[in-house]
Amino acid sequence: MTGLKVGDLVSAEGHILGRGSHHVHYGQEHLAPGIEVLGIDRPGAFTQYVVVPASNVWPNPPDLAPEIASLQDPFGNAVHTVFAQDVAGKRVLVTGAGPIGLMTIPVAKAVGARSVFITDVNPMRLELARRLGVDEAFDAANPDTVAHIQDLTDGEGVDVLLEMSGHPAAIDQGFRALRPGGEVALLGLPSQAIAIEWGEHLVLKGATVRGIYGRRIWDTWYRMRALLATGAVDLWPLITHRFPLAEFETGFQLMKSPHELVGKVILYP
Amino acid sequence: MTGLKVGDLVSAEGHILGRGSHHVHYGQEHLAPGIEVLGIDRPGAFTQYVVVPASNVWPNPPDLAPEIASLQDPFGNAVHTVFAQDVAGKRVLVTGAGPIGLMTIPVAKAVGARSVFITDVNPMRLELARRLGVDEAFDAANPDTVAHIQDLTDGEGVDVLLEMSGHPAAIDQGFRALRPGGEVALLGLPSQAIAIEWGEHLVLKGATVRGIYGRRIWDTWYRMRALLATGAVDLWPLITHRFPLAEFETGFQLMKSPHELVGKVILYP
Amino acid sequence: MTGLKVGDLVSAEGHILGRGSHHVHYGQEHLAPGIEVLGIDRPGAFTQYVVVPASNVWPNPPDLAPEIASLQDPFGNAVHTVFAQDVAGKRVLVTGAGPIGLMTIPVAKAVGARSVFITDVNPMRLELARRLGVDEAFDAANPDTVAHIQDLTDGEGVDVLLEMSGHPAAIDQGFRALRPGGEVALLGLPSQAIAIEWGEHLVLKGATVRGIYGRRIWDTWYRMRALLATGAVDLWPLITHRFPLAEFETGFQLMKSPHELVGKVILYP
Amino acid sequence: MTGLKVGDLVSAEGHILGRGSHHVHYGQEHLAPGIEVLGIDRPGAFTQYVVVPASNVWPNPPDLAPEIASLQDPFGNAVHTVFAQDVAGKRVLVTGAGPIGLMTIPVAKAVGARSVFITDVNPMRLELARRLGVDEAFDAANPDTVAHIQDLTDGEGVDVLLEMSGHPAAIDQGFRALRPGGEVALLGLPSQAIAIEWGEHLVLKGATVRGIYGRRIWDTWYRMRALLATGAVDLWPLITHRFPLAEFETGFQLMKSPHELVGKVILYP
Repeated sequence: MTGLKVGDLVSAEGHILGRGSHHVHYGQEHLAPGIEVLGIDRPGAFTQYVVVPASNVWPNPPDLAPEIASLQDPFGNAVHTVFAQDVAGKRVLVTGAGPIGLMTIPVAKAVGARSVFITDVNPMRLELARRLGVDEAFDAANPDTVAHIQDLTDGEGVDVLLEMSGHPAAIDQGFRALRPGGEVALLGLPSQAIAIEWGEHLVLKGATVRGIYGRRIWDTWYRMRALLATGAVDLWPLITHRFPLAEFETGFQLMKSPHELVGKVILYP
Repeated sequence: MTGLKVGDLVSAEGHILGRGSHHVHYGQEHLAPGIEVLGIDRPGAFTQYVVVPASNVWPNPPDLAPEIASLQDPFGNAVHTVFAQDVAGKRVLVTGAGPIGLMTIPVAKAVGARSVFITDVNPMRLELARRLGVDEAFDAANPDTVAHIQDLTDGEGVDVLLEMSGHPAAIDQGFRALRPGGEVALLGLPSQAIAIEWGEHLVLKGATVRGIYGRRIWDTWYRMRALLATGAVDLWPLITHRFPLAEFETGFQLMKSPHELVGKVILYP
Repeated sequence: MTGLKVGDLVSAEGHILGRGSHHVHYGQEHLAPGIEVLGIDRPGAFTQYVVVPASNVWPNPPDLAPEIASLQDPFGNAVHTVFAQDVAGKRVLVTGAGPIGLMTIPVAKAVGARSVFITDVNPMRLELARRLGVDEAFDAANPDTVAHIQDLTDGEGVDVLLEMSGHPAAIDQGFRALRPGGEVALLGLPSQAIAIEWGEHLVLKGATVRGIYGRRIWDTWYRMRALLATGAVDLWPLITHRFPLAEFETGFQLMKSPHELVGKVILYP
Repeated sequence: MTGLKVGDLVSAEGHILGRGSHHVHYGQEHLAPGIEVLGIDRPGAFTQYVVVPASNVWPNPPDLAPEIASLQDPFGNAVHTVFAQDVAGKRVLVTGAGPIGLMTIPVAKAVGARSVFITDVNPMRLELARRLGVDEAFDAANPDTVAHIQDLTDGEGVDVLLEMSGHPAAIDQGFRALRPGGEVALLGLPSQAIAIEWGEHLVLKGATVRGIYGRRIWDTWYRMRALLATGAVDLWPLITHRFPLAEFETGFQLMKSPHELVGKVILYP
């Protein structure tokens, strides 16, 4: 990357290609062997200085607020998840209203989803989903949730499922709400093997299921830039708290609390 | 369908669209509600006469042998499974060497697969796979099978998995042999819920998994016709036994025997 | 189609499949031989009564205004043209601001286009484009138009060209404004052979160009229903005049006038 | 690229990415601005030594004959052209039997084309096409050629056109032989603007036309390796002459002669 100078406000793609790993299969750089992930395989953003190759740097537009710029790593996951299938004119269910799940709401709306539903067990997260523009937010623990979703989709089920929870019950519920021939993007990560109605949910339904890992380098970044530049996606409602960097512990405690309305917490250096 | 006359040798598409069901979502007629399946929802080919709508009739070319014509229903499943992803130049693993799994071998080779491997626990079926041109046939019970497949794919794993068994252990083995970013077609149907390493096999691997149900009407039939007409696919090695119709019981007993080399059994009326 | 009753407000798909033509290549019913087009191959909507097969009937939602319902034939062309490629996050140029070209503006915006530009020689049509939400409307006769579009796209050119004019100069201008690797949908129909910079515009640019004919039956109709039902697309600004049916001649004269601001003229029976 | 050592037999990708040009749109590295092409923008293989970045080097398998390895630049164009659409089970017409056009024949056959036809005005080139396994080789100057192709395709026309000539008459002939809804890959480069039946050939036919430039880096190279490694593609019949390097003038004169049977000429240093 040329043209960078000290003081530029940049973001970093966190997947760092290993040397010699560029002869990878087309379009799957983010799945290549030898990749190092910032914060996992090498020091991440909790160090005082982060070192990344110049080729991993993404210059931010001058008019992009630093708060929004700082959300671009998870935002990239959300954008990549939504773009894994065509959602224009489709009915979309998001299972799991964590920050990335929440971000998929305005993205799916911005690219023409007919309707976006979300499920979660935490009413605070459902409230955040409403602020981000979801059409209906459902209590995942309510046994009638799938029936409600069927009602809202002419008895057919949703066209697209974005699975952001990694929770077995949510996964099962999501697939039950999916129409035959529907499409599924999987970002949520269960901690162990889970029981799946493989035949009913995947085979007989003729579903297309895509595991989502990371984001497309740099395709997803271009998509993000476009969605933010036009104002099509507004991430500000997701930012619920702001602290000086010194109060980082308050921020982390808030994020762990299930009883607080907490989206993203911004720390100012 | 016009132009049919008594005496024409025809085959039948077994998925019969319900009345009024044609306003279906594009390209998914085979997944539409109200479909009836010949032999499941209405009398099948064990009746003396089979009644199907004229619009479900597929006229066979005059030079197609009746034995091969009679295999077109499962052959359609095999063709639909292989064409669910691009296999040209790719390394393909088939898990499960039943008749449909076996049929995927010559189809995948005909459309340019770089290599085709198969796993099964039955040595008779592995022998049939060899006769149909598989590159390597592996005992699924051998704990080194995944390692062998890795060795044959430069340590990367296969690009494509065709899961034809419905067996949990085979499914797990197949996904372990799959490279990151690989594609999977699922035809095999487990009888109940199964335990899946969902995070490792689907999410982190960035896999694309497609449930396969039935076949595309009539796209798959056109593909079949082309593959058979050019001689690109030879299904004769799959036919291991022939009997007069009166000896059908002998045929069925053979098919149930795990110790006989039995592919397809043809009954002549 | 079952469930229709006298008095239902319905629209009609104008492409009527010939008998026996249903064994068509998958997904291309609208291109099948033997198709008859309403108003071309058989009497159209200028007759007192139009006869169409029940299977060509599309029941309109009860809350859809008849004025908007009556626009669905050209609207289907516009939707089909936009959906011929993925426009989410992309910069789109429409060449030709006739009614169908104008309709592509709100559709492209609804499914996430980053920006939509349009060119035409008629300032009245450019004004209509602005009312429909175009980002920039350019005089096609201005020699600086391509340079202006380059400026607005970081010097790259647009990602997608929707060619709705059929005019050689507009086609040439559109391709010159297209970035390498861009995508093009062609609906406009020149009346004769035209001179094309084939090497520069198509080959060296690595463009993907799709001829658009009709619409996908019924996929496009489902898309239309979704876009109208959510309010994502508003076609009312396109309707500039309304008359009783008896004054149809006034309406037709208006439509022919290049100096009037005329979009769609609605006639009330 | 690591792991290279002096004496390795390597090939070179001839498109050299400019510094700073890697933030390109996804999957279109070969169309990025700032690219330099070996032999056009910087000294090519007629210099004594060719300098390329290590990252442009493709190590050849030890068992690949140097003669075949030396064909990989044009072979890459042929592979990229064929893989631009799915040809499995399809009928393919190649217009123009130059070396790259000829190479598309075994590639299309290897990935399951139902039949491959070719047109050219030079009978020597048609003879080479037959040696490479074409199903039918047609004299492009024969006014009945399109009718012959229609006859061989059940009156429908070919599914896929690979336009390798750049000649206006061949382009027109190719499109006339294409079925509605067919796909076209364009590699041939006319020297100037040409007259095209734009409405009839592209729009009304609903054709999908893709300009082909270069090859996908490194996806096409992996495809090539697979096709050569399995023996699915045999390029030896294309090599008609071999000379010591000192006799290069004889080789060049042969290549220019329309009356000799000349495919590729190999020079041995």
